[in-house]
Amino acid sequence: MNKKFMTDIVFDYRKAEPFFNKDELVSASRMASDARSELINKTGKGSDCTGWIDLPKDYDREEFERIKKAAAKIKSNSEVLIVIGIGGSYLGARAAIEFLTDSFYNLRNAAPGADGLQIFFAGNSLSPKYLNDLVKLTEDKDFSVNVISKSGTTTEPAIAFRIFRELLIKKYGEAGAAERIYATTDKQRGALKKLADEKGYETFVIPDDIGGRYSVLTAVGLLPIAAAGCDIDSLMEGAFAMRELCLGKDFEHNPAMQYAAVRNILYNKGKKIEICSNFEPSMHYIGEWWKQLFGESEGKEHKGIFPAAVDLSTDLHSMGQYIQDGERMLMETFVEIEMSSAEVLLSSEAEDTDGLNYLAGKDMTFVNSRALNGTLLAHEEGGVPCMRLTVKDQSEYSLGELFYFFEFACGVSGYMLGVNPFDQPGVESYKKNMFALLGKPGYEELSENLTKRL
Amino acid sequence: MNKKFMTDIVFDYRKAEPFFNKDELVSASRMASDARSELINKTGKGSDCTGWIDLPKDYDREEFERIKKAAAKIKSNSEVLIVIGIGGSYLGARAAIEFLTDSFYNLRNAAPGADGLQIFFAGNSLSPKYLNDLVKLTEDKDFSVNVISKSGTTTEPAIAFRIFRELLIKKYGEAGAAERIYATTDKQRGALKKLADEKGYETFVIPDDIGGRYSVLTAVGLLPIAAAGCDIDSLMEGAFAMRELCLGKDFEHNPAMQYAAVRNILYNKGKKIEICSNFEPSMHYIGEWWKQLFGESEGKEHKGIFPAAVDLSTDLHSMGQYIQDGERMLMETFVEIEMSSAEVLLSSEAEDTDGLNYLAGKDMTFVNSRALNGTLLAHEEGGVPCMRLTVKDQSEYSLGELFYFFEFACGVSGYMLGVNPFDQPGVESYKKNMFALLGKPGYEELSENLTKRL
Repeated sequence: MNKKFMTDIVFDYRKAEPFFNKDELVSASRMASDARSELINKTGKGSDCTGWIDLPKDYDREEFERIKKAAAKIKSNSEVLIVIGIGGSYLGARAAIEFLTDSFYNLRNAAPGADGLQIFFAGNSLSPKYLNDLVKLTEDKDFSVNVISKSGTTTEPAIAFRIFRELLIKKYGEAGAAERIYATTDKQRGALKKLADEKGYETFVIPDDIGGRYSVLTAVGLLPIAAAGCDIDSLMEGAFAMRELCLGKDFEHNPAMQYAAVRNILYNKGKKIEICSNFEPSMHYIGEWWKQLFGESEGKEHKGIFPAAVDLSTDLHSMGQYIQDGERMLMETFVEIEMSSAEVLLSSEAEDTDGLNYLAGKDMTFVNSRALNGTLLAHEEGGVPCMRLTVKDQSEYSLGELFYFFEFACGVSGYMLGVNPFDQPGVESYKKNMFALLGKPGYEELSENLTKRL
Repeated sequence: MNKKFMTDIVFDYRKAEPFFNKDELVSASRMASDARSELINKTGKGSDCTGWIDLPKDYDREEFERIKKAAAKIKSNSEVLIVIGIGGSYLGARAAIEFLTDSFYNLRNAAPGADGLQIFFAGNSLSPKYLNDLVKLTEDKDFSVNVISKSGTTTEPAIAFRIFRELLIKKYGEAGAAERIYATTDKQRGALKKLADEKGYETFVIPDDIGGRYSVLTAVGLLPIAAAGCDIDSLMEGAFAMRELCLGKDFEHNPAMQYAAVRNILYNKGKKIEICSNFEPSMHYIGEWWKQLFGESEGKEHKGIFPAAVDLSTDLHSMGQYIQDGERMLMETFVEIEMSSAEVLLSSEAEDTDGLNYLAGKDMTFVNSRALNGTLLAHEEGGVPCMRLTVKDQSEYSLGELFYFFEFACGVSGYMLGVNPFDQPGVESYKKNMFALLGKPGYEELSENLTKRL
């Protein structure tokens, strides 16, 4: 893959510039360059978890083809795919599928004669209501399961997998079930790998050097995304192109480094919350993915920007008041889609009761983009430094660029902050307590202490 | 309605107490009492918008019966209901319906022979993709529209209403369409009221003294909620019971006042972000509703707690690291459902590969509640003051209590903060800019200024 790919992402921080001075930018740009060197040379904290950097170039082509074949097989023998995973084994695939497909893909694919799969996510909560409702919805349909877990013992996905595996065995027998279970897990270790080998499930690899929140372009994300009918070749090409840009360009022409630099300057000036704003509801889960990426990478050692996401203009009618006029500890990053994937023309009405006739002949994309511009200017004027990231369209290629852009920016940003952006020690705290309170063997002493505190 | 209703909500702030001292609580309790008096005696800021206080007692019984009849009519002649509204005309109904019904109600109701309505929300964004996808999904089905707008000229719902009204007229003719449009709007003024009167749509009232974010128990929320098959009598009874408690009890026995007091103490000590945490994914939109209620009420004059919401345990694998270990400017309020509406028993497996056999015979509700307790203790230990609100179940009655609880607490809290919790001046800023950039007549000068700034 050595042909020259184009990158289309544009990063514009002019509406943040009034909030800092030139010297601060010069200093931050130097720090960003140092951070990038650490990242690329693998000399920084957690460098054994930076396999995502070269992934778009070096990914396993043999496995990639197997992913496409597995996706085709699932589509051929199933109406439903249940994707079992939590955190990084959940958000990336969901973000991609919702961004790339119909706003109501499950409903459309539930219609008689529909071509596509219904895709549901499970094992990402402990709600009996959700699991029960999903079992009722699925049990009469032909379905397959993609279970995604490095260890195979994380409580949420393990519970869901027990339940759906049992359902599959009841329906298709042991051998039939094994044909419908796809395990994305460790290459050689762990409970799920062991079970998969015993039972003969097809397996895909979660690489050792890529953490959950950076894993969307591994089999973790790729199998569900391919099963949804999306073009994963194009997704990888977009990421490859963005990798070339991120690794090859100096600060002046490197949007990912600029983004990392500006958000760190603003953080050091008291802007402790970053709001990621989209104007396209199918980006909602990209916001959730972004929150995990940055929140889990930077939120440690009692520091880090608090990540929040809003869907606009929707949330201008809920969170808009606060953003415009609440505590001035906010910065905002708008992610804009330049070309919408649909055209809706507004027409004129004989009686202009609602006063919308001035928009007749205009496309909704025009209205939406003016809303974005108006909001950006309003928030800047209200005291919120604003950044703007423009993505060309809702294609796989653009999404590949966007994923890699944020991943790289996050690695640089975490090093600028002085933390290890690739670990998540705080996630263990609730698990430990939960095990103790559930009576898991080995946690007796902790259980006693916690029970006293309740 | 003078019989004695029970309230089941329990508020527990013991895990926030280590973060403040007794004197601060005494002082805050006095302020909360003063704030409540202002609220009830209508002597505070924005007191002309406190019609929600007595609503569960004084609501219009005649209209309430009409709402139930309209809901029945929609169910009898439609497969789909499109609810058009934004902000307060959107979030309350959606929160209630998702809390009270099947996790996949639209998919279940799309199945052949299903009894219920599919309900979709529109007019809450400017996305051409979403609107286009929804039109494609709906156009071949029998459908009705509930358009909710005080003025009838808010851009987002007005555009969606034009499009779906046109579709209805094409399908059923002018008279047939008029039978399928339900307008929830101003009692006598405004573009939508005028159109509804001309065309003969059935209308319901958005009262003058109740703002959008406090309107879920008016026709704004009640018609969609009733159309979803929920028991709105019970919803109002729950709210009535909570009203008695909020108005009648002293600080010591008044959870809404306690909640308002504790969150203000913590805010004044630098806890600038409040996270509302649930352990039940069908509460997601209750979190969104809560964010609007508090964010829009308090986020003004450059102050106010920044509201964020998480769905747990899902987001413990994304936002959990930050909450446990990031900047210590967080407080957290857990909203717990005591009795889940489903039972999922975990069974034993011959080979305990995933190590879950210690949970055999346990219900998932048990596991989920232990996860909540474990998380609460972990976060408190990490330096996050934690509050806990326990709601009995996922019934209409409990939800009525919960809605009123938060509304009342928000009124008290806003007065304690010294703001008018019933206005939203900042929401106009983006609208003004958007109109100017769209070329709306009358905004020429602003348009020129803004264009220069872009």
